[in-house]
Amino acid sequence: MQSYTLTLDKFLDHAAKWSGNREIVGADIEGATSRIDYSVLRARSNHLSGALIALGLVFGDRVGTLAWNTQHHLEMYYATMGAGLVCHTLNPRFAVAHLATIINEAEDRILAVSADLLSLLRELLPLCPCVEQVILMDGVPARSVALDLPGIRVWALEALLKTHGRPTEWGAFAEEAPAGLCYTSGTTGKPKGVLYTHRSNYLHTLRALQADAVALTGADSLLIAVPMFHANGWGLPFAAPAVGAKLVLPGRQADGASLARLMRDEKVTIAAGVQTVWLGVIDHLDQTGGDLPDLKRILIGGSKCPDALIRRMEQRLSVEVQTSWGMTELSPVGTIAAPGDPNGTHASGRPPMGLDLKLTDADGAALDEQRGVVGHLKVKGASVVDRYFRAETDALDAEGYFDTGDLASIDEAGNLTICGRSKDLIKSGGEWINPAEIEDIVGDQPGVGLVAVIGREDAKWGERPVLVVEPQAGIELNAQALLNSLRSRVADWWIPDQVVQVGAMPLAATGKIDKNQLRADYEQGLIPTMGVDG
Amino acid sequence: MQSYTLTLDKFLDHAAKWSGNREIVGADIEGATSRIDYSVLRARSNHLSGALIALGLVFGDRVGTLAWNTQHHLEMYYATMGAGLVCHTLNPRFAVAHLATIINEAEDRILAVSADLLSLLRELLPLCPCVEQVILMDGVPARSVALDLPGIRVWALEALLKTHGRPTEWGAFAEEAPAGLCYTSGTTGKPKGVLYTHRSNYLHTLRALQADAVALTGADSLLIAVPMFHANGWGLPFAAPAVGAKLVLPGRQADGASLARLMRDEKVTIAAGVQTVWLGVIDHLDQTGGDLPDLKRILIGGSKCPDALIRRMEQRLSVEVQTSWGMTELSPVGTIAAPGDPNGTHASGRPPMGLDLKLTDADGAALDEQRGVVGHLKVKGASVVDRYFRAETDALDAEGYFDTGDLASIDEAGNLTICGRSKDLIKSGGEWINPAEIEDIVGDQPGVGLVAVIGREDAKWGERPVLVVEPQAGIELNAQALLNSLRSRVADWWIPDQVVQVGAMPLAATGKIDKNQLRADYEQGLIPTMGVDG
Repeated sequence: MQSYTLTLDKFLDHAAKWSGNREIVGADIEGATSRIDYSVLRARSNHLSGALIALGLVFGDRVGTLAWNTQHHLEMYYATMGAGLVCHTLNPRFAVAHLATIINEAEDRILAVSADLLSLLRELLPLCPCVEQVILMDGVPARSVALDLPGIRVWALEALLKTHGRPTEWGAFAEEAPAGLCYTSGTTGKPKGVLYTHRSNYLHTLRALQADAVALTGADSLLIAVPMFHANGWGLPFAAPAVGAKLVLPGRQADGASLARLMRDEKVTIAAGVQTVWLGVIDHLDQTGGDLPDLKRILIGGSKCPDALIRRMEQRLSVEVQTSWGMTELSPVGTIAAPGDPNGTHASGRPPMGLDLKLTDADGAALDEQRGVVGHLKVKGASVVDRYFRAETDALDAEGYFDTGDLASIDEAGNLTICGRSKDLIKSGGEWINPAEIEDIVGDQPGVGLVAVIGREDAKWGERPVLVVEPQAGIELNAQALLNSLRSRVADWWIPDQVVQVGAMPLAATGKIDKNQLRADYEQGLIPTMGVDG
Repeated sequence: MQSYTLTLDKFLDHAAKWSGNREIVGADIEGATSRIDYSVLRARSNHLSGALIALGLVFGDRVGTLAWNTQHHLEMYYATMGAGLVCHTLNPRFAVAHLATIINEAEDRILAVSADLLSLLRELLPLCPCVEQVILMDGVPARSVALDLPGIRVWALEALLKTHGRPTEWGAFAEEAPAGLCYTSGTTGKPKGVLYTHRSNYLHTLRALQADAVALTGADSLLIAVPMFHANGWGLPFAAPAVGAKLVLPGRQADGASLARLMRDEKVTIAAGVQTVWLGVIDHLDQTGGDLPDLKRILIGGSKCPDALIRRMEQRLSVEVQTSWGMTELSPVGTIAAPGDPNGTHASGRPPMGLDLKLTDADGAALDEQRGVVGHLKVKGASVVDRYFRAETDALDAEGYFDTGDLASIDEAGNLTICGRSKDLIKSGGEWINPAEIEDIVGDQPGVGLVAVIGREDAKWGERPVLVVEPQAGIELNAQALLNSLRSRVADWWIPDQVVQVGAMPLAATGKIDKNQLRADYEQGLIPTMGVDG
């Protein structure tokens, strides 16, 4: 059969040829929209490839991006990947030192930066000697901008396209060539880079397009509210052109009012993003009235969504909510609830063809029973990391599975439920306590804002659990009542013998509770106890 | 990222692990059904691999199958492919000499044959010295059957499984390994073999599973009425386990009564097969009453389906009809109308991601305008043949496209319409006449059964068209009236100057009119003219 390399530029080529008039709509920071179509997007991205080569980049070089979900950012995706360069998406919400570490490890030669992130850029550049040039995107005038940074050449994207843009051959390399680089958030250790290949992202896209997965069609209008710096924007910047879906990019604005207006104006049928974004949309609609009549489905991921919240979204928006589970290391989709599957949304769905899951014990031996029990989750597949960027050893077990670090269970129908992080497990008297189960129960108590359970050293038991709570504003919590809520719902010895209170939980850039910081704060005695001290 | 070879055994592995209880239902020749599930199908197929190896087969060896859509045939698919053998599907409706040629070219070492094809087998074997052993499938007792054929060892599949079956490692080879072999029908020349690889079929499956293509889900019950010896059964024997759909195999019975009963009993939601099969189902329902309440969609292909027939199917069965176009050389899906696309069914739909189309002139130069004009159709993609089996040169043009031999047009929305075969074109006075356009018009005239236009040599014009008609039973046709129907609808010089009549058109094994035979009959003066003779 014909040789046909699985390279990502083919998605945009296909869109330009078969859905050339379908729109890509972008919202700028003031909420104004602009639109181009796939044939123009293809031409611009392809010419931008030529400009990047003219700037001196060669196959495999990394271009860092610090940007929101915009047309320019999407063009930079395809311009880099099509030409055999690596698009290294950076999360602008990471700390400056953290970003600098990542940029230097990746040796990004160019940074492509949203114009509204200039102050971040000014802080970053002195820390990143590898960066030679900067391209400013989104909302800068079509001329070079003078940044007083010695030795750094600064371009505005539109001006660069005009002066250096040229048609460029795309995809002239093997499908195993690197295409993208994304670092994990590093809440549980040193940030680790995942180097996606053309092949892994191509196969991920086809897997996601299945009718039991994202099920995107050419008739859809897709809002990508998940940032494009999170693990390929869940792969949707590839999926949309592959099927010729209309693409709606909200820019930096993720507030309920902006998203609701954009979704209504652009007749969005499928929207993807973390649950908090949709809560903002619902709150806005509740305050102002109105509906989103074209919206059919919301794809959520990132963290477990409570059933009550799913029901609220489904009822208020008259949509279907589709749950999923993924990781940066998985490109990112791991499991997804099939559209229309009433059982799927109580969990995070099933693995589509091309990904396999395995549950093991703490020593890595597969559990005899793979259904209805909690185990350490391992995954295998075409779009799963085998070795972190610049690591010297593989991250796989003897059977070739990657350890997600998650605890999970799988029901009889194959639906996955994440039950916590294996690193958060607390070993007390030789037995394991799962903080996530305790957190779920206490989190449901009235007045509780955020909750976390961490381990403290204990001379007798090895470790003992500590309950850390952040009360809702103006609420005074009763420690004993919180512990009482656990009785008869978890084993007695799981019940924490210390409760402490924080004004605000330390959060990582992804919005998750930073348990490393919390443990450090606790160990330094920075957190007051609440009168229960075992 | 992880290495993950795209091999077809992974589809059945996935089904066994994630949809292990979903059923595969088979109907035998008496209409009785039997059922197993994917976990049993996987185990049986895997053990059958071991048996084939025990019989002496090694990587790359061909196993010919002469069989209907049955559980045994499906097991033979996976048993051969999983073990690195090649499943060479044979069409039992081919002539014996034709089959022998193919079997000998393929050097099939084993034939796996449906027990109801024993008389065909007896005719074939003396002509096929390469065949060493025979495995009888479907409805034979679980013991060896004595065929008085010297030098041929005969096994019954169930007995073979019992005595020689054993667990076998699957997929231990490169994804470019051959998996299947299928010959074209050869109506337009010598039959040509297409050697599918694991990679090409794997990618074809993922492409077909897109929501805009076959859109099969785990909740579906799929009837495969297209024979499994036609180009991988349209790829559905791979698609169904990939998503865990229930699979319904009708065996040899393709009559309306048998299919309607099976579809009703097994709550079939999607059915795939050529249009004539569904006409049989409708006729049966019209005679006996009743409906198919679970059926949602019918996938048709093979040849252009008239709009009126599509409407009749949609109305009588309350289903959506999904049109498609494909070829053995394309694995086979080329284009497909998206479910729910009202424009798609007037044509044969659009190419899903992974396949590209190009229209050229007769010399192979791409047409400047690719929409709204008729050209020679060329295709490119991961699941498209590059070189026929045992051929010494590629079948591709300089840009890597395969010439389908079809004439086609593509509308503004990207929908393909096949307009005839380029080999059937008639060159008259240096200009081309397309027989298919004439056939469409004459075919709509009252009393016309089948119609074909062929070229005859002409001293002045080079070639001139001859209209060949087969009247409906008991109807007398008027030649002049038939020609009058063409006036002002085609150019005057396109109008045939001879009309001839046949009692029955010569048909190829696939049901298409055999124009080679028709031209030969005409040249030998075997066909009477009808009074118009230019």
